[in-house]
Amino acid sequence: MAERLVVIGGDAGGMAAATQARRLRADLDIVALERGTRTSYSACGIPFLVGGEVNRVDDLVARTPQQLREQHRIDVRLRHEAMAIDVERGEVEVRDHDHGRTFRLGYDQLMLGLGAVPRRPPLDGIDLPHVHGVQTLDDGAALLEAAERSQTGDVAVIGGGYIGLEIAEAFVRRGCKVTVIEGSPQVMRTLDEDMGEMVSAAMRRHGVDVRCGSKVEKITETHVITDAGDEIAADLVVLGLGVVPNVDLARDAGVDIGPSGAIAVDRRQHTSAEGVWAAGDCSESHHLVSDRKVHIALGTHANKQARVAGTNIGGGYATFPGVVGTAATKICSTEVARTGLNEEEARDAGFDFHVARIESTTRAGYYPGARPITVKLLAERRSGRVLGGQIVGEEGAAKRIDVIATALHARMDVEQMTALDLSYAPPFAPTWDPVLVAARQAAGLVSKGS
Amino acid sequence: MAERLVVIGGDAGGMAAATQARRLRADLDIVALERGTRTSYSACGIPFLVGGEVNRVDDLVARTPQQLREQHRIDVRLRHEAMAIDVERGEVEVRDHDHGRTFRLGYDQLMLGLGAVPRRPPLDGIDLPHVHGVQTLDDGAALLEAAERSQTGDVAVIGGGYIGLEIAEAFVRRGCKVTVIEGSPQVMRTLDEDMGEMVSAAMRRHGVDVRCGSKVEKITETHVITDAGDEIAADLVVLGLGVVPNVDLARDAGVDIGPSGAIAVDRRQHTSAEGVWAAGDCSESHHLVSDRKVHIALGTHANKQARVAGTNIGGGYATFPGVVGTAATKICSTEVARTGLNEEEARDAGFDFHVARIESTTRAGYYPGARPITVKLLAERRSGRVLGGQIVGEEGAAKRIDVIATALHARMDVEQMTALDLSYAPPFAPTWDPVLVAARQAAGLVSKGS
Repeated sequence: MAERLVVIGGDAGGMAAATQARRLRADLDIVALERGTRTSYSACGIPFLVGGEVNRVDDLVARTPQQLREQHRIDVRLRHEAMAIDVERGEVEVRDHDHGRTFRLGYDQLMLGLGAVPRRPPLDGIDLPHVHGVQTLDDGAALLEAAERSQTGDVAVIGGGYIGLEIAEAFVRRGCKVTVIEGSPQVMRTLDEDMGEMVSAAMRRHGVDVRCGSKVEKITETHVITDAGDEIAADLVVLGLGVVPNVDLARDAGVDIGPSGAIAVDRRQHTSAEGVWAAGDCSESHHLVSDRKVHIALGTHANKQARVAGTNIGGGYATFPGVVGTAATKICSTEVARTGLNEEEARDAGFDFHVARIESTTRAGYYPGARPITVKLLAERRSGRVLGGQIVGEEGAAKRIDVIATALHARMDVEQMTALDLSYAPPFAPTWDPVLVAARQAAGLVSKGS
Repeated sequence: MAERLVVIGGDAGGMAAATQARRLRADLDIVALERGTRTSYSACGIPFLVGGEVNRVDDLVARTPQQLREQHRIDVRLRHEAMAIDVERGEVEVRDHDHGRTFRLGYDQLMLGLGAVPRRPPLDGIDLPHVHGVQTLDDGAALLEAAERSQTGDVAVIGGGYIGLEIAEAFVRRGCKVTVIEGSPQVMRTLDEDMGEMVSAAMRRHGVDVRCGSKVEKITETHVITDAGDEIAADLVVLGLGVVPNVDLARDAGVDIGPSGAIAVDRRQHTSAEGVWAAGDCSESHHLVSDRKVHIALGTHANKQARVAGTNIGGGYATFPGVVGTAATKICSTEVARTGLNEEEARDAGFDFHVARIESTTRAGYYPGARPITVKLLAERRSGRVLGGQIVGEEGAAKRIDVIATALHARMDVEQMTALDLSYAPPFAPTWDPVLVAARQAAGLVSKGS
């Protein structure tokens, strides 16, 4: 009998692994279980669906079940939920929701692409029908439907992280009055406060009512009520409080959960259980700067990890060395990006460091369309090792973070960074690219410091 | 008496060194000799001046003589030309053109920012008044004046490199009929032919008559005549044949000229002569991939090298490790970038290598404004070391070259590159950034190869 790979989860983590395993092994019997009705989609695209930049829910689907079946010979079973895993016997207990039956499915290899679930604090009113999550494409479709159904109204977004702010922009585009409620002193908590403040200011310029430092106490059918006593009118509420890895199934099966709360994997994406692999939002990653385990739910990691898992499942050899915490977003005309450790994370990881922060332009100052950009760099005291970077600016700002991310992978110091041969032409950069100006300032601080 | 720094050349190489030396040493007596009338300008901006993106010649001046005098206490002497250097006695022979006098000026330290001079092949007609160079800002001002004076006419650009193509676009913007004549099989010779072909095609789409593989034989008052027998109507001719380092003064003084034909410098930008430094377009650089000396005339290198020279002159310590050959340009909507070695250069440097080439989009495929991008990567056989990259695409394509440039500095291999944590969000990239897709293909070739 052919060796069987069972995949739990039809999104990136599972399907990218399955298709990669297929590439390497034509003979593998691959069964994929998806409890929902869609496969391989871009959840990151949901805000743009709501905002109207993307027209149809289906545009966000990278591979349909039919494509997976026909092009990759993956036996995709929709509305099939894995209820339990028996790692001793190599079996999954499966619930077929459409036919109301439960059966056991044997595996030789098991791929966990379980994803993550949105944080839902136990608030009064959180289960009201006008309160929406934005985790799955089904969530996105429901939110779009609600947005289209309701007249232009009042929208409250709880949480000022990436998704929260993107959703806020989307509703501004729809002509809604939007309030973002964030518990921290500034939005975008993965940035330092000084950089987050620039994002809060940008959101306000774009017409969003940003309320930082206040927590939601209660949701009613018409309002969101905060601990500051604010009563914010809202006929639609969106939860953008981030996600937690979906690990119950794995934990119950005895698969090790790591210090980050996500499934522990080795560098080949193998879990603690024989023949069981994991990738994507359910698994943890090694952070190459802090040298700690972290849980970062992001489609690009899911795809990379899944490809590594699929290669190994297929009999090849591949490793996922880890992440440096890069993230970017665009909110109206403001671009935001970060990588590595921010100040709090760096302190927490035991680093002492210098902070450089510079302002420049995205193109030569005299070239049309030169936009402001602020770059912040953290450099370890004495060694000068770059620890992290943050960028807030306008068009052309964010993607520059990739230079800092690559420097983090290479463990460069800021002195080395000052010599980087980055591209220069007036439409793309000043003679000193803003990243180099920041590196120069950081190198100066390191050399003066002791 | 105060120690005296004499600087020859009032553009980037000289002035960035002078201002940096001033920062470190308030007591230094700094005299700068400039044979023209302008200082510290962006020659790279000339095409945009001609094209109308930049309004005034003065917009391209970063620091005027007055600013240099008042803010940096540099004794800038315009229309003063260095005629000879006596390295034994530490003196420069100076010609003051305005007063018709010659004098000797002693130095303790001498900074050479001599720049480069445009290639002017000994063609019949090359000295006709309608034949223009684009090297200095005075050239740029003259070209702009000629462009404004003549009615919309026929323009011939000799040379299809960066400047040639940028000038061609500029005249297309002015409504002229533009022909580019390039001796190589494709424009943009620093790219491989397959990538250059994409640029030629883009130029043609933008209405430029591109004639590759033919050489100019003669220029008349009305035409440019090629060895293919073409007679190209031209009431304005622009030379875009690149530059050669301006080294006569240094060579005559006995300063070593390197294998690239430019002034040889050590890692601190010091020349072979005691107390004599050089930076910018007159000096050579170490290429960090080929490990050879190269001459690359580019404003960003000039500024970096000059800053290093100025730091050392000022008593500090700084080094310029070298370049990786990064360059970028934008022609109409087409963005072009390259870094490291192209195929010919890699072969010439003794490398055997694999070639990956992929097509992708600049943003998530479903996101508005996703534009095509082609990425080519060269990876050393067996080691997988990345040797170079080339990008041709539309908006958002070119700056991605910086990731490859940074990877070259770090001597990464393409397998390592596949794991780079580059920023992902639908407005900025697909889940697999095009650079990662190219790295993935290259890594596959390396692992399959032997």
